[in-house]
Amino acid sequence: MPFSPSHFGDRLTHAIKAKRSPLVVGIDPRPNQLPPSLQTDSGDLTATAKSFATFGKAIIDTVADLAPAVKPQAAFFERLGPEGMAALAEVCDHAVSAGLLVIMDAKRNDIGATAEAYAAAYLGPKPESAWGCDALTINPYMGFDTLEPFFKQGQSTGAGVFVLCKTSNPGSDALQSRQADGGDQTITDLVADEIQRLCEASLGESGYGNAGAVVGATYPQQLEHLRNKMKNSILLVPGFGAQGGSAADVAAAFDENGLGAVINSSRGVIFAYEKEKYQSQAAKSWQDAVRQSALDAIGVLRDSTNAGKLA
Amino acid sequence: MPFSPSHFGDRLTHAIKAKRSPLVVGIDPRPNQLPPSLQTDSGDLTATAKSFATFGKAIIDTVADLAPAVKPQAAFFERLGPEGMAALAEVCDHAVSAGLLVIMDAKRNDIGATAEAYAAAYLGPKPESAWGCDALTINPYMGFDTLEPFFKQGQSTGAGVFVLCKTSNPGSDALQSRQADGGDQTITDLVADEIQRLCEASLGESGYGNAGAVVGATYPQQLEHLRNKMKNSILLVPGFGAQGGSAADVAAAFDENGLGAVINSSRGVIFAYEKEKYQSQAAKSWQDAVRQSALDAIGVLRDSTNAGKLA
Repeated sequence: MPFSPSHFGDRLTHAIKAKRSPLVVGIDPRPNQLPPSLQTDSGDLTATAKSFATFGKAIIDTVADLAPAVKPQAAFFERLGPEGMAALAEVCDHAVSAGLLVIMDAKRNDIGATAEAYAAAYLGPKPESAWGCDALTINPYMGFDTLEPFFKQGQSTGAGVFVLCKTSNPGSDALQSRQADGGDQTITDLVADEIQRLCEASLGESGYGNAGAVVGATYPQQLEHLRNKMKNSILLVPGFGAQGGSAADVAAAFDENGLGAVINSSRGVIFAYEKEKYQSQAAKSWQDAVRQSALDAIGVLRDSTNAGKLA
Repeated sequence: MPFSPSHFGDRLTHAIKAKRSPLVVGIDPRPNQLPPSLQTDSGDLTATAKSFATFGKAIIDTVADLAPAVKPQAAFFERLGPEGMAALAEVCDHAVSAGLLVIMDAKRNDIGATAEAYAAAYLGPKPESAWGCDALTINPYMGFDTLEPFFKQGQSTGAGVFVLCKTSNPGSDALQSRQADGGDQTITDLVADEIQRLCEASLGESGYGNAGAVVGATYPQQLEHLRNKMKNSILLVPGFGAQGGSAADVAAAFDENGLGAVINSSRGVIFAYEKEKYQSQAAKSWQDAVRQSALDAIGVLRDSTNAGKLA
């Protein structure tokens, strides 16, 4: 999808409709799980970075017609140092060329001019933005003033943010589920209210704003609660598949038209060739296994959620 | 300071004593504030990245005998894309060579294996770690389980973490100062308790553990409170100088020997040549202005805090 000075919520909604799919494919390469043809000496960062770029681009080519967006996980590329970051940029560029939106999963945040630097780095088209992404995941701990530079950058470039709201890990309750100041609202609720506020300030024709929310599939009851609190926010739902979230668990994320949510699967799709199920289907190549697993994930989502209305 | 399989709290304490200084110099390059000799066409990311590396290395050479550590701010390098990240690596390498500890200010976090990837990327010596840093700032929002991979990586490599606890920005109260579950503890207090727990699990001969805490100079009362709560944590205090925190404001961060805290100054030191005060002192070069401002900052800290006992 070419960048335009338009609206992120609308662009993502349009992409979901065009692909008739809410599946976002997470690009989380790990050296010891690459297909055999891409395995390298684990100590050779240069060779591994090259394999990561090859792998990421092949994943993109394999799912480009099945997914509205990919979500590269910065950590796995950063693990390899500067050459890993160059591979990450190559993957982002390839995704843009393939017509996919790029949600950079880097969970950044900082204050003031530092937040502005991160925002300018990632959000919006190249060359003004160095990485040229459509959206970035950001962390709200430092306060809502620190979300503003990202949101503003998105407003001016047609990009969006996904604010961490309720994360999918077992310990996410530690701070997120605390009741704030003795009231009924949890910390997560306060974050959700701020996300909704940002969306109301940036509503598009789709009915969705430019501030998305990360809400884990592993807490289905909270997902339903948060869907209701953030009626104008597109939810990015991790934890589906490998982390244990089922299609039924994510059903509450969708609106009545099957919109308003993207469901991420990383390991379950990109390493599908490791699974006996996909090996036994006599896949001709590792990409065949990846593609089949993406199709299966979309099928399960269509069968069990309003995403079926996209088909 | 060469890496050793020893203990971060001890290593940083040793460096503070050896330099007789608690000043950490933040390396936050911004294109339009570089010295005239390093200014480039702002649209040329390659040239700007090269200038950032030259600038950062010159800062390091200028303050190497005055500071126990430098704190590169990842955002400003990421702003330039992969070439910026290569410049960041060059700066880190140079700091290690110059005998300075490197506190990477990247405020990373994620869950499980992703957190492990960030931890392995940054914490510990090269080549096992791609970036070879002594410590990394991390964000606790996702939960305390997400701090563990960083802490563990530090335990095995002699590196440390600085967990965001009370940040220096105006809006930091929004989540951090909420009382949790109707009790006396704020969200910041819960984070502080966890940091103290990690320190007690990693106490060194210095009396300090391997988990530091980021506590802003802009909230002096909370700084005193948090110092008392985290008796075994080295505090990293931003907000001194350009953000408005005075030496009196940071005094509570130090223990009775002038240890247990590092005070960061970024803009106030690295862009000192912009200030009339340092121009009028007939500084021969921009580095002279930087060096004099670092000496002045150390002098003020020694005059007004227990850091005077280091001299």
